[in-house]
Amino acid sequence: MKKFIAEFIGTLWLVLGGCGSAVIAAGFPELGIGFVGVSLAFGLTVVTMAYAIGHISGCHLNPAVTIGVWIGGRFDGKDVFPYIVAQVMGGIAGAAILFLIASGKSDFVLGGFASNGYGEHSPGGYGMTSALIIEVVMTFIFLFVILGSTYTKAPRGFAGLAIGLCLTLIHLISIPVTNTSVNPARSTSQALFVGDWAIDQLWLFWLAPIVGAILAGLIYKAISPEITDNL
Amino acid sequence: MKKFIAEFIGTLWLVLGGCGSAVIAAGFPELGIGFVGVSLAFGLTVVTMAYAIGHISGCHLNPAVTIGVWIGGRFDGKDVFPYIVAQVMGGIAGAAILFLIASGKSDFVLGGFASNGYGEHSPGGYGMTSALIIEVVMTFIFLFVILGSTYTKAPRGFAGLAIGLCLTLIHLISIPVTNTSVNPARSTSQALFVGDWAIDQLWLFWLAPIVGAILAGLIYKAISPEITDNL
Amino acid sequence: MKKFIAEFIGTLWLVLGGCGSAVIAAGFPELGIGFVGVSLAFGLTVVTMAYAIGHISGCHLNPAVTIGVWIGGRFDGKDVFPYIVAQVMGGIAGAAILFLIASGKSDFVLGGFASNGYGEHSPGGYGMTSALIIEVVMTFIFLFVILGSTYTKAPRGFAGLAIGLCLTLIHLISIPVTNTSVNPARSTSQALFVGDWAIDQLWLFWLAPIVGAILAGLIYKAISPEITDNL
Amino acid sequence: MKKFIAEFIGTLWLVLGGCGSAVIAAGFPELGIGFVGVSLAFGLTVVTMAYAIGHISGCHLNPAVTIGVWIGGRFDGKDVFPYIVAQVMGGIAGAAILFLIASGKSDFVLGGFASNGYGEHSPGGYGMTSALIIEVVMTFIFLFVILGSTYTKAPRGFAGLAIGLCLTLIHLISIPVTNTSVNPARSTSQALFVGDWAIDQLWLFWLAPIVGAILAGLIYKAISPEITDNL
Repeated sequence: MKKFIAEFIGTLWLVLGGCGSAVIAAGFPELGIGFVGVSLAFGLTVVTMAYAIGHISGCHLNPAVTIGVWIGGRFDGKDVFPYIVAQVMGGIAGAAILFLIASGKSDFVLGGFASNGYGEHSPGGYGMTSALIIEVVMTFIFLFVILGSTYTKAPRGFAGLAIGLCLTLIHLISIPVTNTSVNPARSTSQALFVGDWAIDQLWLFWLAPIVGAILAGLIYKAISPEITDNL
Repeated sequence: MKKFIAEFIGTLWLVLGGCGSAVIAAGFPELGIGFVGVSLAFGLTVVTMAYAIGHISGCHLNPAVTIGVWIGGRFDGKDVFPYIVAQVMGGIAGAAILFLIASGKSDFVLGGFASNGYGEHSPGGYGMTSALIIEVVMTFIFLFVILGSTYTKAPRGFAGLAIGLCLTLIHLISIPVTNTSVNPARSTSQALFVGDWAIDQLWLFWLAPIVGAILAGLIYKAISPEITDNL
Repeated sequence: MKKFIAEFIGTLWLVLGGCGSAVIAAGFPELGIGFVGVSLAFGLTVVTMAYAIGHISGCHLNPAVTIGVWIGGRFDGKDVFPYIVAQVMGGIAGAAILFLIASGKSDFVLGGFASNGYGEHSPGGYGMTSALIIEVVMTFIFLFVILGSTYTKAPRGFAGLAIGLCLTLIHLISIPVTNTSVNPARSTSQALFVGDWAIDQLWLFWLAPIVGAILAGLIYKAISPEITDNL
Repeated sequence: MKKFIAEFIGTLWLVLGGCGSAVIAAGFPELGIGFVGVSLAFGLTVVTMAYAIGHISGCHLNPAVTIGVWIGGRFDGKDVFPYIVAQVMGGIAGAAILFLIASGKSDFVLGGFASNGYGEHSPGGYGMTSALIIEVVMTFIFLFVILGSTYTKAPRGFAGLAIGLCLTLIHLISIPVTNTSVNPARSTSQALFVGDWAIDQLWLFWLAPIVGAILAGLIYKAISPEITDNL
């Protein structure tokens, strides 16, 4: 039970912190944090929670991560589904708190919230193929870094930094393409508030991250036979 | 006595560094550091002091932190009040040094200094409810990360980074709403120089952070029965 | 074989992440990440891979690094050539994926991709001599930091951070001069897609980094007699 | 001898990297790194060298640091003068390389290079008193963090990060006031190329940092009786 509460709070923080920085602070006139600040924010939600709850739940905060580490042989299959439920619920709770705060501004407009999208809903106007490729590849590398940095032979204690900063890096590259998902719980949490096109395009942000994660689980396992979890 | 001197110097640095970067450098024409720079500055005051005085006083630098770790069972109740006094005095000393430096500019205007506020004194025009929610939630997570990353089972030595970067993250999200407090000593130090509305609104920046901190102390204690301090 | 796959994937990530952030996100209107974001991205490709594959291949991702650590007495000469082949192939693969993604934007123009150049192809209009000096000196320091931070007496585990952040720092200084190479595999990967002048100028981005790396290998060896690899 | 070579190379890097980022990249049109990038660059010169040469020379790179750790009882008095000579020479070498590179731009103008100044030579127009106060206080805290984070009871290995990021933080606050010195070798290296007013004002950037460092040495010693060096 503690594990699920930890994943719930952690994913709440990922959505409130990451999407919150995008909605509230990215475009603030003159002093706004831009994509650099949003990238830092998403990464730091993971860095902070990795050290806070890594020892409780492993700090996945992301259905694709849970599936990837399970395929990679580091996680018990029977916990996959409840972890994903806790993550999606935590994400929705984070989005609800963000909505409450953001709507307290006199000239508030929901717009796309911090939804992920492609085609005319891509921040930079990238098509569906670009979106599919980048979400698969980015999640592949994300899981590769997760599996590699928590491997028994990696330096102890640094995985939280490496993994969180990997999420920062992923955002530095891919926000213009899809607004960056690599995390179905994060995408779902925003789409539920926006509805409409965000729901229509949501399938891609479940499919692509999970495909990337499964590939990483299989390949990392292949290139490192003797595997042990030391997150 | 050494503990109180350490908290005094540390909180002086938090205010001088964090609020100083906002007052002196955030809006510098063209090259200014913006909210990203201010967020980094606040977080780095905690990172630097965590390694410098963590082994002397625990490096709280914040009445809400002191109350939260006390409620969470990690801190001796008899030191709560003297810690808070040292923090508030350190914050005021930091604000005084900042005032001395900043007023040495020919076209200096005090304005709002780096005060926290809501309604018409919120940088982005957010109302009181948004301010209350965000200050409670941000301080809740801040304490949750503090209690989690200093837990015995967390990797040794990384808490200073995780906690400081959590403060950076909190600023990346919430500067537009309240100018970000989560720290009554920091708010008080600025309000005393601004007076007027900053004093009138100061209650919120004592109440909300302390409520968030108490909630985190209670909840973290509940989800991790066997608790030991290893900050 | 695992080592070569690791170097291939790692260099793919360096090019996709570093050059990708430059091509996709640097100049995004208003919210773009600028040179600070690109500098962070390049550095974080190394930080993330250092912890993910450092224990497999040493995480060189760069022919100049491989040559420098070999001259410095930390790497077996027989692996130098296959490592370089894996790095160049990984770089090209990264560039191909980036091309696929970037060309999915309706108004895509290849331009200089993220090629390195001097003279009229230097972002800031710096001449060939400046380019030669800066690439030699930056790679010299890069290898000096690599050899120093992986020395047996350096603190364990921190080398990945120090080396990755060194690459960030190198970019913060030198993007305006040559678009920053210090890595022949990275330069080659972009030049192949741009052809023309980028191929003509490619010699400098093999010569200068390798000269800098050899000098660092020789000098670090001279000032630290007792050498052991602990990356 | 190795110690002096290490200090020479390290200070060369601090000036080339920190001042170089300011001269070459800070004001680049649209994509320039601004004060945030320059602050990161200065800090990262120290982070990278701390792990590369900390185990050789202690990585001072700064006469004020050498004097402060000597006063604080952590450094042998007989090495103070040769360290300072190596640092000043390294700084001048770094400035010379920077001058060579920067002057390879067709429209190069030396201007103030990256000199420190006050009054009409302060970037933000701050007077001499502000300059004195901020340089004393910033160097005081810098040494306080150095002495604290290298204290035996501080977590092992993290001092390089804490100290380097402290220099980043110091720049985030104080570039508008004096262009940030806290380091007489850095100031001297630039003033020699600019001459004139930069030489006239150079006294302040020797006096103030050294006063701040001495105060920190005395006070840190007072609040932590049992002192051992573990840098």
